Amino acid sequence: MSRAQVFFTAGPAELYPKFEEYLQAFVEQQIGSISHRSGQFKKIYQHTDEQLRILMNIPSENAIMFTGSASEIWEKLILSTVEHESFHLVNGSFSEKFYQYAQMLQKHTNVLKKPLGEGFVYSEVEVPEFAELICTTQNETSTGVQMREADIHKLKRSNNNKILAVDMVSSAPIPELDFTVIDTAFFSVQKSFGMPAGLGVWIANEKCLEKANILKSKGKSLGAHHDLPTLWKNAKEYQNPATPNVMGIYILGKIAEDMNKTGIDKIRKETEEKAKKLYKYFEQKSGYSPAVENQNLRSKTVAVINTERPSAEIIQKLKEQNMIVGAGYGSGKDTQIRISNFIANSPEQIDNLIKEFEKF
Amino acid sequence: MSRAQVFFTAGPAELYPKFEEYLQAFVEQQIGSISHRSGQFKKIYQHTDEQLRILMNIPSENAIMFTGSASEIWEKLILSTVEHESFHLVNGSFSEKFYQYAQMLQKHTNVLKKPLGEGFVYSEVEVPEFAELICTTQNETSTGVQMREADIHKLKRSNNNKILAVDMVSSAPIPELDFTVIDTAFFSVQKSFGMPAGLGVWIANEKCLEKANILKSKGKSLGAHHDLPTLWKNAKEYQNPATPNVMGIYILGKIAEDMNKTGIDKIRKETEEKAKKLYKYFEQKSGYSPAVENQNLRSKTVAVINTERPSAEIIQKLKEQNMIVGAGYGSGKDTQIRISNFIANSPEQIDNLIKEFEKF
Repeated sequence: MSRAQVFFTAGPAELYPKFEEYLQAFVEQQIGSISHRSGQFKKIYQHTDEQLRILMNIPSENAIMFTGSASEIWEKLILSTVEHESFHLVNGSFSEKFYQYAQMLQKHTNVLKKPLGEGFVYSEVEVPEFAELICTTQNETSTGVQMREADIHKLKRSNNNKILAVDMVSSAPIPELDFTVIDTAFFSVQKSFGMPAGLGVWIANEKCLEKANILKSKGKSLGAHHDLPTLWKNAKEYQNPATPNVMGIYILGKIAEDMNKTGIDKIRKETEEKAKKLYKYFEQKSGYSPAVENQNLRSKTVAVINTERPSAEIIQKLKEQNMIVGAGYGSGKDTQIRISNFIANSPEQIDNLIKEFEKF
Repeated sequence: MSRAQVFFTAGPAELYPKFEEYLQAFVEQQIGSISHRSGQFKKIYQHTDEQLRILMNIPSENAIMFTGSASEIWEKLILSTVEHESFHLVNGSFSEKFYQYAQMLQKHTNVLKKPLGEGFVYSEVEVPEFAELICTTQNETSTGVQMREADIHKLKRSNNNKILAVDMVSSAPIPELDFTVIDTAFFSVQKSFGMPAGLGVWIANEKCLEKANILKSKGKSLGAHHDLPTLWKNAKEYQNPATPNVMGIYILGKIAEDMNKTGIDKIRKETEEKAKKLYKYFEQKSGYSPAVENQNLRSKTVAVINTERPSAEIIQKLKEQNMIVGAGYGSGKDTQIRISNFIANSPEQIDNLIKEFEKF
C-alpha cells in the first residue's frame, strides 16, 4: 500500500515499509485476542527476544523486557539501580528529562551539562566518586547530537564498578553498542523501528539485577509496577507481569526478523550513507547548515539543520509536497528543522527530499 | 471480516466488531506517524475524551488520562494519593495485586479479605480511621464477583473525607458509577472495550489532584513517570507527558463513539440479559453451577462457572468448535471455567456457546 505522506519526523515517524503487512497478519491470526499467559504469546515474545538478540548482538544472560514507553524505563531503571546517587550527561531536552526523573525520585543527582548542539567525548567526563549509575544519551533527539559508541565503552571501562545506562531511544538498532561492556540500554519503537508508539524495550544485564536485589534486601522500595526483579523473572519465561502491548511485541519481532534478513551491517551502512548525504547537502546549501558543528557528534538518525528562513515556512512548503519534516525542539523551534534518517526512510525518500530543497 | 475464532476470554478478549474498520482508518490516515504534539493528535485525544465522558457520564472537572496499562495506574494512584495509609477490599487475585502494590510502595496497608467467590456489601465494611484511600474492585476478574454500584456509592458517602477508588478494569463501561460521588476509577481497553492490550485509562477528580499536590508540597515523591499532577496538566490540554499509545487512544474514541450511537442504556440492558441467560443456563445444567452463590454479586461481564468435569476437557471441546473459553484463575484453574460477557460478545455468540454446551 502506498502512503500519501512521507514522514521525516523524529518519532512518531515513517512506519516500516512492511508494517501494514505485519499488522494484517496480527489481525488475521486474531493475536489481539489471545491470552498473554498462553503458549502462543510466549512464542511471540520468544521470537521477538531472539530476533532482537541477533540484530543488536545481545548476550543470552541479558534480559529483554517490555514496558509502555521508554520514559517509563527512565523511572524503573533509576528506582531499581540507584540507592543514593546518579550521574547524568545532559545536552538536550531528553537527557534533561532523564536527569529530572532522578530528581523527582529524590536521588542525589550529579550532572555534566553541555550547551545545546554540543556533545560528550570520553576524555572530558569525570564521573563523581559515589555515583552508582551513569546515564548517557546515545542520541539526543532534541539537538541531533550523538555520543559515539567508543566513548560510551571507554566511559564504562574506566568506571567498571558503576552501572552504565544508554538511552538509545531514537537510534536503536543503529549504534554498535557492546552489550558485554555496557550494563543497560533502552529504546522505544516509534523511532528507528518504524512502529506506532506504545512500547518500550529495556535490555539489562545481571549486574543491574544484582543491584536491584541489594536495594530490595536493604528494604528500599523499587516501585510496585515493572520493577526490575519482577520484569526480569517474567522475561526469562517470555512473560510480562501485567498484560503488555501484545501487538507491539509481535510486530517488533517481525520487523527485527526482516532487518536480520537484510543484515544489520548493511542497514548501518545505508543509514550512514544517507546521513552523510544529508549533512553534505546542507553544508553547501546556502541558508542552511548542520546544527552540530563537530562532524563526529552528528546524529546518524536525526539530523538537525539551522535555517535562515523561519523553519515554519520550510515545513509548510515541504508539507505541500507531502513531505513531513519536524521543527527544531524547544528554543530551536523557529530556527531549525529536524529530519529523521530512520531505517524506514529509504535512500529514495532522502533523495526526493533533497530534490525538493533544490527547488527552493 | 469474519473471524475464525470467537473469544469468551476475560481479556485479552473478543475484539469489538468494528475494530478492523477503525484500524484500517488508522492506517489509511497514517495516524501511526503523526506527532503526539500536533493539533491533529490533540483532536484525537479530545474526541476520545468527549466520547468517554458521554458514555460514562464523567463530569467536565474530572481528568481522563492515559497510561500503558491499568496495573500502572494502581501504582500511580497510590503514589499520588496516599501519604501513610490505604485500605483494600480483597476477594481475588486482582484486588490482591492492588493491595500488594501498596505494600511494595511501603504504605501502611489495611485490608478486609473475603474468601474467593464472595463479595462485599456496604454494611459489613468498616473503614479504618486513618486510611486515606479506599481501594475497591468493582469486578474481580479472577472470581467473577462484582461489587454493586450502590454499595460503592454508600461506602464513599459515609467516608467523605477519604478518596474512593474503583478498579473497573474488566467491567467498564457497564457499571453505572456516579462520578460526582466516587473520586477515581480506571480500566484497561482489552476487556469490555474489545481492543488489543496496551492502554490504561485513568479518571480522577480534583480531590485526587489536591491530595497529590499536598503530598508534593510536603516533599513526598510521587514517582517520576505519570504522576497525577503531570498527567492531569497534560490531559487538560489533550496531551500526554510522554509519547502515548496513539493508536489505542484513537481506536478507543471510535469505539466509544459507536457505543454512544447505540446508547449506553441499551448496551447495559443487553449485557444484563446475556448475563442472566448465562447464569440461568448453568444453574439448571447438570454438572455445572455458577461459582458465585449470591446472585446480586455475580459479575455481569465475567461469569465464573464451577465444573464437575476437568475444565481443560471442556475448554478443549469448545476450542474444536472455535470457541475460546478461559480456565478458572489460580486455585480454580482445573475446576472452573470463565466466560466473558463483554460488549463484543453478541447475543448470538452467547446463544451459540450455550447450544454447544447442550451437545455435551
